[in-house]
Amino acid sequence: MIVVVATNYLIEEKKHEYMVLVKKLVEETRKEKGCISYVLHEDINDPNKLAFIEKWETKEDIDAHFKAPHFVELTPKLNECRTDREVNLYKEIL
Amino acid sequence: MIVVVATNYLIEEKKHEYMVLVKKLVEETRKEKGCISYVLHEDINDPNKLAFIEKWETKEDIDAHFKAPHFVELTPKLNECRTDREVNLYKEIL
Repeated sequence: MIVVVATNYLIEEKKHEYMVLVKKLVEETRKEKGCISYVLHEDINDPNKLAFIEKWETKEDIDAHFKAPHFVELTPKLNECRTDREVNLYKEIL
Repeated sequence: MIVVVATNYLIEEKKHEYMVLVKKLVEETRKEKGCISYVLHEDINDPNKLAFIEKWETKEDIDAHFKAPHFVELTPKLNECRTDREVNLYKEIL
């Protein structure tokens, strides 16, 4: 299993637009092969810092997710709503 | 529920020592009130970047964790094994 932590730094005035777009991304991604969980979080101290915490069966499933039609379609639109994005892939060790 | 992502950047030659210390921290923390899960992860591209992903029932439980005897005892020793640490607290929104 691979755990992804994907942190998104939003442009304040674009948060509403981001949330509308991201709902579709979440709905479609949860149907994907190998997606165990895909949950969006908000920093309790910063409403414009959001983080996906995702569990995937394999690295190949994540590679396929990055090429999925909804991901490819929505990513440029989401990029217009954020200043930065950081994606980290982890394995459980303890 | 609060989700904590605590990223630790280790000093390469101190990783073994860190892992010995952190085992005790994990064992004791999982017994704490309000601790739903407390799992240590390693970045698949950087063996010296580790992240705890933790689920806690309330913010008060996390505040109590930071004052727990095992946390207070082990933190200065763990600090000697890492160059930096970043702690983020999140709530689920989607």
